[in-house]
Amino acid sequence: MAPRAETYNFGAGPSCLPEDVLREAARGIIDYESTGIGLTEISHRSKEFSALVQDAKKNLKEALQLPDDYTVLFTQGGGSLQFSSVALNLLSRYAALHPTAPSPSLDYLVTGSWSSKAAAEARRLGGNVNVVLDTRKSSKNKKFDNLPSNVEAKGWNWTRGENKPAYVYYCDNETVDGIEFGVEGFPVEEVDEDVPLIADMSSNILSRPIPNLHRHALIYAGAQKNIGPAGLTIIIVRSSLLVDVDAPFLPTAAHPAPAWAPRVPQMLSYKLLADNDSLYNTPPMFAIYLSNLVVRRLLSHGGVPAIQVTNERKAEKLYEAIEKLQSFEGKVESGRSRMNVVFEVKGEGREKTFLEGAEERGLRQLKGHRSVGGIRASLYNAVSEEAVDVLIQWMEEFDKSA
Amino acid sequence: MAPRAETYNFGAGPSCLPEDVLREAARGIIDYESTGIGLTEISHRSKEFSALVQDAKKNLKEALQLPDDYTVLFTQGGGSLQFSSVALNLLSRYAALHPTAPSPSLDYLVTGSWSSKAAAEARRLGGNVNVVLDTRKSSKNKKFDNLPSNVEAKGWNWTRGENKPAYVYYCDNETVDGIEFGVEGFPVEEVDEDVPLIADMSSNILSRPIPNLHRHALIYAGAQKNIGPAGLTIIIVRSSLLVDVDAPFLPTAAHPAPAWAPRVPQMLSYKLLADNDSLYNTPPMFAIYLSNLVVRRLLSHGGVPAIQVTNERKAEKLYEAIEKLQSFEGKVESGRSRMNVVFEVKGEGREKTFLEGAEERGLRQLKGHRSVGGIRASLYNAVSEEAVDVLIQWMEEFDKSA
Repeated sequence: MAPRAETYNFGAGPSCLPEDVLREAARGIIDYESTGIGLTEISHRSKEFSALVQDAKKNLKEALQLPDDYTVLFTQGGGSLQFSSVALNLLSRYAALHPTAPSPSLDYLVTGSWSSKAAAEARRLGGNVNVVLDTRKSSKNKKFDNLPSNVEAKGWNWTRGENKPAYVYYCDNETVDGIEFGVEGFPVEEVDEDVPLIADMSSNILSRPIPNLHRHALIYAGAQKNIGPAGLTIIIVRSSLLVDVDAPFLPTAAHPAPAWAPRVPQMLSYKLLADNDSLYNTPPMFAIYLSNLVVRRLLSHGGVPAIQVTNERKAEKLYEAIEKLQSFEGKVESGRSRMNVVFEVKGEGREKTFLEGAEERGLRQLKGHRSVGGIRASLYNAVSEEAVDVLIQWMEEFDKSA
Repeated sequence: MAPRAETYNFGAGPSCLPEDVLREAARGIIDYESTGIGLTEISHRSKEFSALVQDAKKNLKEALQLPDDYTVLFTQGGGSLQFSSVALNLLSRYAALHPTAPSPSLDYLVTGSWSSKAAAEARRLGGNVNVVLDTRKSSKNKKFDNLPSNVEAKGWNWTRGENKPAYVYYCDNETVDGIEFGVEGFPVEEVDEDVPLIADMSSNILSRPIPNLHRHALIYAGAQKNIGPAGLTIIIVRSSLLVDVDAPFLPTAAHPAPAWAPRVPQMLSYKLLADNDSLYNTPPMFAIYLSNLVVRRLLSHGGVPAIQVTNERKAEKLYEAIEKLQSFEGKVESGRSRMNVVFEVKGEGREKTFLEGAEERGLRQLKGHRSVGGIRASLYNAVSEEAVDVLIQWMEEFDKSA
């Protein structure tokens, strides 16, 4: 097939994927490993696909340096389904452990659009949500445009005392708002060791080693940013978190289930997924396949430590250009994301001109999220340093013409 | 790319897809409509992808001849998640309509492995399941190997009287057991017009016009049989079924929510999916794309009425061969499926020989479901009549050598 036109894809997700990987996948969907059958046409219980799932797990474990007591799960539904799954599974776990306790507190850090939605869903499902931190309150503009330093963490509104929260939840990188916890990571020292720590890493997984990985009980990520195509959700879970979601309702339970214990839809149960090695029903085979090709490629290019260096350099360059050039203004006060760089084009009507010029130069998908506007350049793993250089060149040219 | 080896894929799902469609999709994931970006790399809110979703809906509506008051939804999670979604959405609807009523009866017809699992999940979620029919009881072998005629339907164990069921549920084609409702369809006359009728058509959708379509409130299908790759679930729903799943819990509700009213995870709400045109979050874009190519191809080849004729001919031929040849024995007494033909190879150890010979002839994925064994030949739309002929040839040859 002919090479495609030269483009630089800054999409926030679904987003840029390595072209060589796409070409391999294109062959695989027609004829998978010379079986004469395409990848999407073989049984998910065939030896070929079982081998693929094992390989995908192994490669993710290696890339993320997962300790042995963590399992990788593949599922569907994206972050928005995980918002529900997290609340339901963890409430169920708490009910199994504390059947006579009142509805537990669920600790949420609200640092952007996605963690805000996650908290809202837990509340909608009947959960007793406690907002540990809402960064709109520390913003001059009442926006998600800042992240207080971890040294202030002691003063945040954590659930303290005897009745511990069922879990603590945060979003490591807020894709819409361009906010990310720094290299030191989330302030884990504020969370008791026996309280499960849950993180949404949809938009920065595999972009750097996970800070304080071993302190997390569960980490999840929609694939469509740094890993692969839409339609796959990756879950990393500590084995001790896998509890039977029916436990509170079993006739053998020591106490009747508390009124706040939820019934968990089967496919949302982490234990069911783990017990069936992510093959309880037909998984999103193409998305697993393509994601595995991406992770394999990452490993052969130096893995996460190598891409971390490139990612930092890409983000630094771009933030520097935004600061230096008069025509642009960053939108984030503190906690700037390496993955999603959000900024404004100053001057009435100039944003449109900037975006049109960008399109002409093959710079694509730079428009900010519909809820906040402005410009957003997403610098995921598959976005090359060259792409960032071309973007900066255009920014400089645009600034001069002002 | 080189043509692939000649194979005949009888997989029960994931299953055979048209090779020309796969070749078009292979181009699309590298460069979608000459945008220079692949289909899985563009935003799901881009004009290109929005147009694709609209086209996919339009084509499905046309192929299935859907009346105007039905909507097509795209979601994830497969049939196993729909088992939960159906129960939760419909219980929620009943609670909104009858907030002071006791937990309603949920009427299930258990005619095979899948409807059996669906009923079990509704029960697990706390639903008051009433089994209208369990065909193991009318079987000599206590197996799902028969389907009583509709003329007997009046005598089945329907929920009758003033307190109507929240819904009636059936599976139109049982993939594992090879059981299908006939051309006259499900006995809809036994279901009151105001009781929602729900059908799982995962493995026979688009294989024939849907009998009594307008009497159904909701029909769903995992894509990975007759439509496309795994990772996409298609839902056809009558607008009147779309109710706010939070309605029973709203402060404005006339009565407090009954204890049996479930909290529905947001992504499982049919109304949320419909209100957001299946784009509440990032949908499984590749699976929608590929499925749409399949449906387009179907329409250009005479649509569902044309494929129905071929499908009937394929199934008839194969059943005839099974009956005629001494070496084989059909496993279904009544209600034989046109989609999944299940049979036994007679004689100790001969099944293995039959399957090995089949492999040598490029006849693939003929092994029966791990729960029931034997042979299963799935004859979905993409399986050519030629493939069936080659299979029958091998069966005749095998029979002669006995």
